[in-house]
Amino acid sequence: MASRTRIAVDCMGGDFGPCVPVPAAVQAISRFPGIDIALVGDRQAIEFQLAQIEAPISDRFTIIHASDIVYMSDKPAAALRHKPQSSMRIAIDLVNENHVDAVVSAGNTGALLAIGCYVLKTLPGIHRPAICSFVPANGQGMYLLDLGANVDTDAEHLHQFALMGAALSSVVDDLAAPRVALLNIGREDGKGNDLVKRAQKLIDADEDINFVGSIEGSDLFSGFADVVVCDGFVGNVALKVSEGTASYISSIIREELTRDWVSRCAAVLAKPILSRIYKRLDTQRYSGASFLGLAGVVVKSHGDSTVDSFFHAIAQAKKEVECNLVEAIGLKLKVKPK
Amino acid sequence: MASRTRIAVDCMGGDFGPCVPVPAAVQAISRFPGIDIALVGDRQAIEFQLAQIEAPISDRFTIIHASDIVYMSDKPAAALRHKPQSSMRIAIDLVNENHVDAVVSAGNTGALLAIGCYVLKTLPGIHRPAICSFVPANGQGMYLLDLGANVDTDAEHLHQFALMGAALSSVVDDLAAPRVALLNIGREDGKGNDLVKRAQKLIDADEDINFVGSIEGSDLFSGFADVVVCDGFVGNVALKVSEGTASYISSIIREELTRDWVSRCAAVLAKPILSRIYKRLDTQRYSGASFLGLAGVVVKSHGDSTVDSFFHAIAQAKKEVECNLVEAIGLKLKVKPK
Repeated sequence: MASRTRIAVDCMGGDFGPCVPVPAAVQAISRFPGIDIALVGDRQAIEFQLAQIEAPISDRFTIIHASDIVYMSDKPAAALRHKPQSSMRIAIDLVNENHVDAVVSAGNTGALLAIGCYVLKTLPGIHRPAICSFVPANGQGMYLLDLGANVDTDAEHLHQFALMGAALSSVVDDLAAPRVALLNIGREDGKGNDLVKRAQKLIDADEDINFVGSIEGSDLFSGFADVVVCDGFVGNVALKVSEGTASYISSIIREELTRDWVSRCAAVLAKPILSRIYKRLDTQRYSGASFLGLAGVVVKSHGDSTVDSFFHAIAQAKKEVECNLVEAIGLKLKVKPK
Repeated sequence: MASRTRIAVDCMGGDFGPCVPVPAAVQAISRFPGIDIALVGDRQAIEFQLAQIEAPISDRFTIIHASDIVYMSDKPAAALRHKPQSSMRIAIDLVNENHVDAVVSAGNTGALLAIGCYVLKTLPGIHRPAICSFVPANGQGMYLLDLGANVDTDAEHLHQFALMGAALSSVVDDLAAPRVALLNIGREDGKGNDLVKRAQKLIDADEDINFVGSIEGSDLFSGFADVVVCDGFVGNVALKVSEGTASYISSIIREELTRDWVSRCAAVLAKPILSRIYKRLDTQRYSGASFLGLAGVVVKSHGDSTVDSFFHAIAQAKKEVECNLVEAIGLKLKVKPK
């Protein structure tokens, strides 16, 4: 039983309550024979949801009742202080008490980070955890971090993000020396703000990092790097601008395809192509965001996740547990005493 | 003659030398009866280019010879110090000496900014100039600034950017009270890094600014604001990520349309729709970037501008001169003595 992967699913986080996490967990149980899931939240709501989808009865599910909910509008500090009985908190407590190996939640990001930091703590030597997401791009795609865990960052933090991102890419994608880049406003030496210039020196001097230099926002999707590092403010803006651009372009495509009857006919013919395009554009939303640097696996699914994307977040948590991501990060950081 | 708009075109800047600026200037002369153009650069190369395109002879052109060129790879400080005979420098000198009203260049952005600041100076009271570009979005689109003139910015700079952006939007788009937003990582109060939080207070307290609060990267294209303010590092990343996303999506569309013969047939039928879509996606590249806060109109066209987009940059410079943008910015800033 010890070799099984045990995952806690916060069933009350996200925009849709248990409607998304519960079916996603059922899907994960049926797809991955090696995992067990703890469904954390209002017992009645979870049981109702399981009945709704006629989920087969399985001893691989455990329902852990939680009487409170962290809402999207809750301030992280308030959620941490005043909601010890929330599904989010109990799910993270389960990781801390070693009842499960990982937690997946679509809830309030700030609260999840605050509770994660408070309960699980950061790994020894880690200054700040980082939020990291897979972003599809030419080639294999890449990991972008930080996405908003830290908004006032120093160069040493960016250096650690580079190490953590490289550890993730190494173990999850089995790359010997992932290419690490800094997100910057130019490729040439000497470009960037003060923070980036200082970080560049630290990362460049670190022989454990396969540093390929700076990349610009326009090259984010070019496949030049496996890991792209930036401060949380910039990363959050970059990721959301790319989402905003994709949705703006989708709206333009929709408008143009319904402009007149000729366009509408063409749209019917192009439907399978369009659905392939939309599916590829949606890939990023499929993957959850990993909180790196904590002493436990925490994966955040989008607040408005679909069942499919929440399922992918569970799959990601499973993978991070099975490839010993936390240990890999610890090891990568341990070799560089400050 | 005094009421005519006189524009200096740097014919040697950009990736293609005179091949782009010269035909664009010819197009502008024929489209706008009220403008005269000074073509600045290597006389022989310009005359050759005029002959190539069989440009009609016109006394509305003047060729001003320049023996040197600022290259894309030149360091701004070196270009400023060592290239007093470059086409870029001479074109800006023409503005300073009131021989022309504006300059348009597709050359090295950093050098254009450095020379612009040195020769023209900033308007009284302006701490830093900003680079501002029109970005298409739902509704009328919006102006985004700063795009990289400043990478280490303080809150007072962002406050001035808000005022300058509002002045631009007011006079160019004839809006009484343009909606100004801050680019941030959340809409709620208290979100953001230290810089943005401090800027938010200053901008919010300024009764001359119709401040609509923070917007996230995902809302950049939603049409919530007419002017979006951020520091130059963030703005540069945001703009380039949006370009990178658009080009990544275009590549996905192209791939999917050539995947098999059914797709290729559909692509033929969808061709007019696709070209409308591509045209709309390309709008942003059409407009030049304005350097706001200088005592003169300077418009930067993309380094890889087409004739069409360079023409649009000339049209923009013309508009900025004719609506007295520099005076409007001076006025907007003057009412708030520090």
